[in-house]
Amino acid sequence: MPRTFITDLGAAGTNVDQVFLVAEKDLRTTKKGGLFISAKLRDRTGEVPAVMWDATQALFAAIPQGGYALVKGRVGQFNDRPQIVIEAMRPVRPDEVDLADFLPAGPGDPAEHLARLRKAMDLIERPALKALMDAVWADEALVAALVRAPAAEKLHHAYLGGLLEHTLSMAELAVLVCRHYPKLDRDLLLVGVFWHDLGKTRELHYAESFGYTDAGKLVGHIVQAVLMLEEKIAAARAAGADFPDALADVLRHLVLAHHGQHEFGSPKLPMTAEAFALHHIDNLDAKLHAFWRDVAADADPARRWTSWNRMFDGALYKGFEDPAGDAGDDDAERGDLKGGL
Amino acid sequence: MPRTFITDLGAAGTNVDQVFLVAEKDLRTTKKGGLFISAKLRDRTGEVPAVMWDATQALFAAIPQGGYALVKGRVGQFNDRPQIVIEAMRPVRPDEVDLADFLPAGPGDPAEHLARLRKAMDLIERPALKALMDAVWADEALVAALVRAPAAEKLHHAYLGGLLEHTLSMAELAVLVCRHYPKLDRDLLLVGVFWHDLGKTRELHYAESFGYTDAGKLVGHIVQAVLMLEEKIAAARAAGADFPDALADVLRHLVLAHHGQHEFGSPKLPMTAEAFALHHIDNLDAKLHAFWRDVAADADPARRWTSWNRMFDGALYKGFEDPAGDAGDDDAERGDLKGGL
Amino acid sequence: MPRTFITDLGAAGTNVDQVFLVAEKDLRTTKKGGLFISAKLRDRTGEVPAVMWDATQALFAAIPQGGYALVKGRVGQFNDRPQIVIEAMRPVRPDEVDLADFLPAGPGDPAEHLARLRKAMDLIERPALKALMDAVWADEALVAALVRAPAAEKLHHAYLGGLLEHTLSMAELAVLVCRHYPKLDRDLLLVGVFWHDLGKTRELHYAESFGYTDAGKLVGHIVQAVLMLEEKIAAARAAGADFPDALADVLRHLVLAHHGQHEFGSPKLPMTAEAFALHHIDNLDAKLHAFWRDVAADADPARRWTSWNRMFDGALYKGFEDPAGDAGDDDAERGDLKGGL
Amino acid sequence: MPRTFITDLGAAGTNVDQVFLVAEKDLRTTKKGGLFISAKLRDRTGEVPAVMWDATQALFAAIPQGGYALVKGRVGQFNDRPQIVIEAMRPVRPDEVDLADFLPAGPGDPAEHLARLRKAMDLIERPALKALMDAVWADEALVAALVRAPAAEKLHHAYLGGLLEHTLSMAELAVLVCRHYPKLDRDLLLVGVFWHDLGKTRELHYAESFGYTDAGKLVGHIVQAVLMLEEKIAAARAAGADFPDALADVLRHLVLAHHGQHEFGSPKLPMTAEAFALHHIDNLDAKLHAFWRDVAADADPARRWTSWNRMFDGALYKGFEDPAGDAGDDDAERGDLKGGL
Amino acid sequence: MPRTFITDLGAAGTNVDQVFLVAEKDLRTTKKGGLFISAKLRDRTGEVPAVMWDATQALFAAIPQGGYALVKGRVGQFNDRPQIVIEAMRPVRPDEVDLADFLPAGPGDPAEHLARLRKAMDLIERPALKALMDAVWADEALVAALVRAPAAEKLHHAYLGGLLEHTLSMAELAVLVCRHYPKLDRDLLLVGVFWHDLGKTRELHYAESFGYTDAGKLVGHIVQAVLMLEEKIAAARAAGADFPDALADVLRHLVLAHHGQHEFGSPKLPMTAEAFALHHIDNLDAKLHAFWRDVAADADPARRWTSWNRMFDGALYKGFEDPAGDAGDDDAERGDLKGGL
Amino acid sequence: MPRTFITDLGAAGTNVDQVFLVAEKDLRTTKKGGLFISAKLRDRTGEVPAVMWDATQALFAAIPQGGYALVKGRVGQFNDRPQIVIEAMRPVRPDEVDLADFLPAGPGDPAEHLARLRKAMDLIERPALKALMDAVWADEALVAALVRAPAAEKLHHAYLGGLLEHTLSMAELAVLVCRHYPKLDRDLLLVGVFWHDLGKTRELHYAESFGYTDAGKLVGHIVQAVLMLEEKIAAARAAGADFPDALADVLRHLVLAHHGQHEFGSPKLPMTAEAFALHHIDNLDAKLHAFWRDVAADADPARRWTSWNRMFDGALYKGFEDPAGDAGDDDAERGDLKGGL
Repeated sequence: MPRTFITDLGAAGTNVDQVFLVAEKDLRTTKKGGLFISAKLRDRTGEVPAVMWDATQALFAAIPQGGYALVKGRVGQFNDRPQIVIEAMRPVRPDEVDLADFLPAGPGDPAEHLARLRKAMDLIERPALKALMDAVWADEALVAALVRAPAAEKLHHAYLGGLLEHTLSMAELAVLVCRHYPKLDRDLLLVGVFWHDLGKTRELHYAESFGYTDAGKLVGHIVQAVLMLEEKIAAARAAGADFPDALADVLRHLVLAHHGQHEFGSPKLPMTAEAFALHHIDNLDAKLHAFWRDVAADADPARRWTSWNRMFDGALYKGFEDPAGDAGDDDAERGDLKGGL
Repeated sequence: MPRTFITDLGAAGTNVDQVFLVAEKDLRTTKKGGLFISAKLRDRTGEVPAVMWDATQALFAAIPQGGYALVKGRVGQFNDRPQIVIEAMRPVRPDEVDLADFLPAGPGDPAEHLARLRKAMDLIERPALKALMDAVWADEALVAALVRAPAAEKLHHAYLGGLLEHTLSMAELAVLVCRHYPKLDRDLLLVGVFWHDLGKTRELHYAESFGYTDAGKLVGHIVQAVLMLEEKIAAARAAGADFPDALADVLRHLVLAHHGQHEFGSPKLPMTAEAFALHHIDNLDAKLHAFWRDVAADADPARRWTSWNRMFDGALYKGFEDPAGDAGDDDAERGDLKGGL
Repeated sequence: MPRTFITDLGAAGTNVDQVFLVAEKDLRTTKKGGLFISAKLRDRTGEVPAVMWDATQALFAAIPQGGYALVKGRVGQFNDRPQIVIEAMRPVRPDEVDLADFLPAGPGDPAEHLARLRKAMDLIERPALKALMDAVWADEALVAALVRAPAAEKLHHAYLGGLLEHTLSMAELAVLVCRHYPKLDRDLLLVGVFWHDLGKTRELHYAESFGYTDAGKLVGHIVQAVLMLEEKIAAARAAGADFPDALADVLRHLVLAHHGQHEFGSPKLPMTAEAFALHHIDNLDAKLHAFWRDVAADADPARRWTSWNRMFDGALYKGFEDPAGDAGDDDAERGDLKGGL
Repeated sequence: MPRTFITDLGAAGTNVDQVFLVAEKDLRTTKKGGLFISAKLRDRTGEVPAVMWDATQALFAAIPQGGYALVKGRVGQFNDRPQIVIEAMRPVRPDEVDLADFLPAGPGDPAEHLARLRKAMDLIERPALKALMDAVWADEALVAALVRAPAAEKLHHAYLGGLLEHTLSMAELAVLVCRHYPKLDRDLLLVGVFWHDLGKTRELHYAESFGYTDAGKLVGHIVQAVLMLEEKIAAARAAGADFPDALADVLRHLVLAHHGQHEFGSPKLPMTAEAFALHHIDNLDAKLHAFWRDVAADADPARRWTSWNRMFDGALYKGFEDPAGDAGDDDAERGDLKGGL
Repeated sequence: MPRTFITDLGAAGTNVDQVFLVAEKDLRTTKKGGLFISAKLRDRTGEVPAVMWDATQALFAAIPQGGYALVKGRVGQFNDRPQIVIEAMRPVRPDEVDLADFLPAGPGDPAEHLARLRKAMDLIERPALKALMDAVWADEALVAALVRAPAAEKLHHAYLGGLLEHTLSMAELAVLVCRHYPKLDRDLLLVGVFWHDLGKTRELHYAESFGYTDAGKLVGHIVQAVLMLEEKIAAARAAGADFPDALADVLRHLVLAHHGQHEFGSPKLPMTAEAFALHHIDNLDAKLHAFWRDVAADADPARRWTSWNRMFDGALYKGFEDPAGDAGDDDAERGDLKGGL
Repeated sequence: MPRTFITDLGAAGTNVDQVFLVAEKDLRTTKKGGLFISAKLRDRTGEVPAVMWDATQALFAAIPQGGYALVKGRVGQFNDRPQIVIEAMRPVRPDEVDLADFLPAGPGDPAEHLARLRKAMDLIERPALKALMDAVWADEALVAALVRAPAAEKLHHAYLGGLLEHTLSMAELAVLVCRHYPKLDRDLLLVGVFWHDLGKTRELHYAESFGYTDAGKLVGHIVQAVLMLEEKIAAARAAGADFPDALADVLRHLVLAHHGQHEFGSPKLPMTAEAFALHHIDNLDAKLHAFWRDVAADADPARRWTSWNRMFDGALYKGFEDPAGDAGDDDAERGDLKGGL
C-alpha cells in the first residue's frame, strides 16, 4: 500500500497504519496518574504531532528517538492542526524502510545534475587538474556521497542532493563569470567550486537523519576538504600527473579561504582573484537559495514580509503587487536548476 | 610640440619645457640660508619629484598647489630615480591646458561603453522603469557626468570614465546572473545597478583633480543617489508614467542597501533578493578590478606577492610559474571591457 | 455606556459587553475534540487574556487579528490574574470605534506641546530657515502627523503624541545647551532637532495599531526625513527664500548623522558641532524616558532592581531608601513635560 | 627682561637669550664628522626647532630632555619656518624658571572658576553629601590640585586648569539638565560631576610637563577617584555625618560608569539615571571642547574641513559662508567659560 | 529524622514531611475555577517540581519565594520524572533550618583547604607583603567569608567554599608556574591570586541563597577587592610595615587587570608579567572547572557531546571510547583538590 | 680571523673587513650629483647603518638585498650611534659564509633541548600515540627542521631553535599542569603541544633569513601541521599501530583550535579540556617570552616603562625599585630554559 505523506493526511478520523521517523518523544503523566506519550513524527514532507494515551515505560523505552516506528491509529486535530492519535506502535529497523520516504530530497534529477557538473568540470584544461578530477570520478564512493549529501544541516540546500545542486549551480555560474572576466583562471575557479564544500560529505551524516558527525564538529568541512584533496592529489600523482606543489597550495588556499572571513571559520583570507570570486559565488548561491526558500515557507501568504530571519538579520520582503510587470520568472518550477552551460 | 609624459621622461640631461599639475609644494632653506622649492609634479601617467634651487617666497606663493604650472628645466636623478631640476616656472590656468593630459582616464571608448550600457538597460520591460530611464537619458548633464566621473577617488576605477566602466561591467554581469537565476527580477536589478553609484557624480569632484565635495562628505553618494532618483521619478511621473510608491521604495532600498552592512555606510541591510544580488555583484566587480590593478602596479615584478594591501588586508598572490597551463587570459588587453550581452 | 478599561475590570463574575482590539488569537481543541479560541484582548490601558469555549472555525476566521471585536461575556480568573470568558463576539470595523480608547496616548496636552514647540522654533533667526519652518507649519497634514505619531514602536515615547513630546523635550533642552555653549549655532541645532525623527511619521503606522510600514522597513526614517526635508526646501525656495545648497547639505548631515554610529543606521558620522550635540541630546532624552518608564513598569515594586533590560544591557537600579534626602522630584506628575523656555 | 614667547619670535637674525623647555634632543654628525645637536624647544605658546653646530657629547649629556635650558643664539629659518640657531646653552633647574611660561594654561581665571564650581556644588541638599563636600574643601592640597591639573594629557582641556574648567562646565550644564528633567537627582549628579575625573590629579603629572604617572598607568583615574572618594567619605563620617553604605555605592557607581562602555575602561555600565546623564554630559563637554579646539588649530584657514581627526574618525566641517546668518557666537572670547547658574 | 535529599526521593507514593527551599511559586486556576499552586522546591542536591491542589490565595501569599517551607505530601510522577504532591505546607524561618542542607557545598574539607592556602601564601618573602597577609589572617570575619563564599553565582565553583577552592587551586598552580618561569615574581603572583576574586565576598550574597548584592551590581568585585586591599594595606602600615606606594599600585594593577580585557570588566589591561600570568591562571582554572562540571552534568550520558554551552560557545566533547588508553585520571574523586605544593 | 660582531664594533676609526648580511640598500645622489649607497648591515647580534660614497649603478645592482657582501671600510659615527663607512664591497654566496654568524640563535643547547623534549614525550602511554611519535623521531629531516626553525618571524622565539625551545617549555609546563589537574589527559596534551606549531617548519623559511614561504601565506602553519600529522598517522598505521579515526580527529582538533578564537585563524574553537589547556599554555609561554624580551630590549634603561607595545596594546611595566625584596630571579641566565621534569 503506497505511503500517505504527512502533507496529505486526510480529515480527522482517517486511519493511519504506516512507518514514521520519530523525531522527538516524551513520556508524561495525566492528572489522574496515567502515562501517555507525546511525540513528533516526521517524513520527508514535514512533521506532525502525535499522542498515545495509556502508554507504558517499556513501550516508551522501545521506541528509538531519531529512529523509525510503525504507527497504527487515526488522524485527530489539536490546536487547529492535525495530530495523530496513536493506538499502537512498534520500532522498525532503518533497513526495513524506504529512507527516501523520510529524508527530504531536492528537486531535479541527481543523475542529470551529476552529468551537468561533469560537463562543466570537463572545461578544465591543465593536465594536472584533469588528472585530479579523474581521480575523483574514479572514486565511486566519493561520487555517491557527493550525489547524496545535503549542503548543510539547515542553512541552505538542506536536503539529499543539496550539495550536488549547490556545487552544480556554482560551477555553471562560475563559467559565466569567467566569460565576463577573462582574466580569471577558469581551471582554478572550477576546481575551487568543486572542492569547496566537498568536506560536507564527512562533516554531516545523512543516512537516517541530518546532523553533524564527530569529525564535523572536531575538524569541520573546510579542513576535511583539504584532507580529501590531499588524497586525490596523491592519486593523480600516482597516476603519473606532474602536479606541482605550488598548484596544490593554490588549491588548498581556495578551499581554506572560501568563507571569506576568519569569523566564519576560514583560517585564511582570500588572496587570489579566484579565491575572492569563489567566496562571492558561494555566498550569492547559498543566500539566494535560502532567500527564496524562506519566502516560500513563510507561514502567512497574506503578509508582504516574512518573520525575522536569522541568516539575513531582518524580515525578508516578498515583493509588491505588480500587475503591469512581472516580479521574476515565478512560473519557473520552484527550485529546479534551469539552463546549463 | 606634443607632450612628453612622465613615464617617458628621457635620460638625465634632457630638457623639459611643458605644463605639469603641481600635486605638492614645499619651501625650504639650504644650510647656507638660501631658499629652495621641493615639489611633486604630476600628469595622467604618474608623478615625478622636482626641485628648484634659488627660489623666492613670491614665486612659491604664486604656484597653485593642486593647480598647473609651466615648468622649464632638465631631467636629473635623485635616489636612483628621475627628478626634474626646475630652472623657471609660472602658473597656468586650467582652461589653458588639455585636462586629458593630467587626469587619468580609463581604458576603452566612453561612447562605446555608454552605448553598451544603454543596450543593457533597454532590456527593462516595466513601463514605469522605462519611463524612469527615459528621464535619465533626456538629462544631458547627467549623462555627461556619468560618462566622465570616476567610480572612486582611489579605491577602484579611480579614473575618468571609471563610474561608467564599473556600471557597465555590473550591468552586463547582472544580465548573466539573471540568466542563471531566472527568479531574479532583472528589471529591478538593472535599475539598481544603474543608480547604485550614480551619487558619485555629486560626491566627487573630478574637473581639475579628484576629491570629495562638501556634499560628498556631509551627505555621501548613497543618499545623493536617492535624491537624484527622486528627481527622475518625478520626471517620469510628469511624463505620464504610473509609478507606484511601492516601486519607488523598492528602488530606494536597492540603493540604500548596496554596501551590504551598516559599518560600510548602508542605512539599510539588503532584504530583497535583488538587493542582495546587487551587493555581491558590486563587491565582486570592484574588488576584482582593484585586485588586478594592484597586482599590475606592484613595484617589484620579481616577487610573487604584492606588498600588504589595505583593501584585502594582506599581500596579494600574483600566481605561480605555470608552463603547462595558462593562468587566465593574460593576453587580453589590460583592463578593457570585453564582451557584451 | 462608558467603557470599562482593562486596568479597571471588576471582580470575577462582572459582565463584559464592549469592544476590544484583538491582539492575538488561536484556535485549539479540547481533549474531547471540541474547538476553543484562546485570545489576547487589548485597549490603551493594557492587555487581558480571553478564552471562548465551543468556538467554530467560521467564527475564528471572522475575527480579525490586529482588528476589533465586540465581546460579550464575563470576567474570570486564570493563573491568579483576570481573564475574560467570552460567550459571544463579532467583528467591528475600525471606523465604528473610538480609536483613542485603544491606542496608548502620552501624557500632556498635544495642543500645548505643539504651541511650545512652535515657540522654541520661533527662536530661529536665519531667513532661509524661517522660510523652511513656515513651509512646515503651512502643511496641515504634516503637522497633524507630527502631533499624532509615536516616536517609536516600542523603544521610547511609544504612544500617540510621543514624537511631538520627544521633539519638544529635545528642543527645549537644545535651547538650554546653546545658552551653555554660545558657540553652538542654535538655528542649526533647532532645525536638526525638528527634523531628526520626522521620518517616523512615514516609517511607522499608528492608525489602528503601531508598527512599521513597508516604506519604513525598506527606506527607514532617517532617509525618509531627508526626503521630507527636500520637499520643504523646495517649498521655501518656491516662496522666495534664498536657500543655499551648502545650508541644505548641512541640514541633511544633521539628520543623517543623528544616530551617531554606522552600526545604528547612520550613513554618516557627526562632523559638525551641532550634529554632535544633536546626537547626544537625542540619546539623552530617549534613554532617560525609557529608563523611568521601565523603572515604573517593573512588575515587582519590592525590588530595588528591574529585571534585565535590553536597551541598557543590565538591570536598572531604582534607587535606595533615602529618608533624609529626596531622590529626584518624584512628586512631579509622571511623564508630563514640565517647564518650557 | 620680559620673555619673548615662541609665537612672537622676530624675523631671522633676532637675538635669543632666554630659557626654553627642551622637549626633544638628538646628537648627530655632519658629513665631515663634526657633531651637532638637533632639538625641539618649547614654551607654553608652542614649539620651535633648534640646531647647535659644533656641539660636544658632554654638552649634549648635560642638557635634560624634558627639562630646561638657557639658550643663546639667534632666529634662523628652515623649511619656510623659524628655527633657532643655538650658539651656547646650559641646563637650568625647574625652580629657577617661571613654570607658568612653559606649561599651557587654560583661559579664564582659576579663582573665579573655583568660586563658580563651589556655588554650583552648594546646591547640594543632603547632609551626608554636604559633609562629603566639606571634607573636600577642607583639603587644601586637593583643591590646589583640582585648580591646577589638566583634564587630559592631550585629548581635551589639556592645559593647566583644564580639569577645573571641564568640571565647572559640566556642573553648570548639569544644573540646567536637572531643571529640564526634574526627576533627575541633582545632588547625585553634581557629586558625580565633581568626582568623575578627580582621579586625573593622580593619573597625570603636570609639574614640569604633562604625562601619565606610574599610578595612572597601573591603576587609572577611574579607580583612583574611587579611592579618593573613600578617603573623603571616611572624613565625612569622622566629622559626624550619617553616610549610608548604599549612598557610597551609588557614588562609586557614578564614577566607575562614567565612560559609558567597557571598551573605554569603565568596569561598570551606567545603571542609574544619573550615571547615564553624567556619561552624556561628560562626553558632550569633552567632545565639543575638542571640536572647537581642533577647528581653531587647523593649519589651513582657507579650507572648510580640518584634516582627518582621530577622536571624531573623520575631518571636521568648519562651516560654510553664511553672510545672512551667524554661525554661532564667534565673537565670544575663544574658550572662556561664559555664563554661570 | 534525617533529611531525605531530592536526589534520593523514593518511588511514587513515598511520604514527604520536611523543609524545602521554595525556589519558585505560581498560583493557577483549574479549568473548573479551583486554585492550585505550582512550585519548584530545592535543596542542595537539586530541584523537584511540586503541585498543591485546592490552594488558597492566603496560603500562596504566606509562602516566601526564595525562602523555606515545611511540606507534607507524597512523591508523584509527572512527565516521566518525580514531582511532589503537596497536601499541606507552612513557612519556616531560615534560622529554623540547617542551611547546609540547602546551599550547595563544594567537595573537600574547607579547613584543610584553608590550611593549604595559608601554606602557599607563607612562601611570600617580602616583609611588606607578609605584613599584608598577616593583616588578612587577623581579620576573622574576612577569613570566614573567604571560607564560605562561592566563587560565582553560576559560572564556576558556584557553591559554598568555591571561592576558597578556586583561590587554593590557583595558588598551588601559581607555585608550579613560578618554578617553571623563575623570572616571575612569586610574591606578587601569590598576592594577586589571593586578592583577585576576594571582592566576591561582597559582590555576592550566599547566606540563604546565591545572588548579587546591590554593591556587587553597582561596584563589582574587581573594585571591591581594591577597596578591601586598601584596608589591609592601611592595617599593615599601622602595624609598622614599610609598604611603598609603588608596591600598592602594582597590587592594585594585578586585581584590576585580571579579567584581561576591557570587555570583561577590567578597567586596565595586564602590563606586568605577573598580571598576565594571573589572568591566564585564573582563566584556565575557572574554565577547566566549568568544563568538567558541565560534562558531568549533561543530561544524556549516551551522547558524546553536551548541548550547546554558553561559556564555550559550542557543545563540549566528552571524549571517545578508548579501551587501550585512559582518558584522564577519571578514578580521581570528582572535583576534590588533589596534591598540594 | 674571527668575526667582530656588530654589538662589539670598536670606536670610530676601527677597520672593518668581513662579511655582512645586506638587510636593506638604497642608491642616492648627493647634491652635486654623485651617487652614494645607504644600507643596513646585519649579523646575528644586530644591525648597523652603513654608507658608501662614490658608488656606481653597477656596484649597487651587484649587491643582493637579503644576501651577503664582503665589506671593507671603517667604523664612523652618525646620529650618536656607530655607522660603517664602506670603502669597497663585493657580493658573497651564502655557501661561502657561516650562516650561524648571521641568523640569530636562541640561548641554550639544541641537543639538550631535544633530549629534554623527547624525555617529556616519552611520558606518553597510549600505544597508538607512542607509534605516532616513533614515526616522528624516525624522520630525520623533520627532527632537523624542528631543531632549527624559529617559532615565529618576529612575534616570539624568533630565532634559530626558537620552535624547539617554545615546544619544550610548553611540554614541561604541560606536565606540571597535568600534575595539578589529574583529570587532564596528559597523552593528548603532550601530543597537542608537540604538533601545535610544527607547521611553522613549512610556514617559515629560515635558511638565509627569516620570512614566510608561499605555502605559509596560502595555507598557514595550522593546516600545514594537520597535513604533517596526516603523514605520521599513516606511518604509524603502516608500522602496525591501531590508530582509531576518533583519536585522529581529536588530535586534529587540538592543532586546529590552539589559537583559541576564529579571529586569530583557528577554524575551530577549543571543545575539549586538553584543547582549552593547550591554548592557554601556548599563549602564556609565547606572551611571557615576548614580555621579557621586549622589556630587555627597551632602548632606555632609565625608564620604568617600555614604549607602546603592539602585542600587549600598551607600554610594559619593567618593575619598581625594590631594595628589600627581589623582583624575580633576575640572576637566572637570561632566556635559557631551566629545570626539566
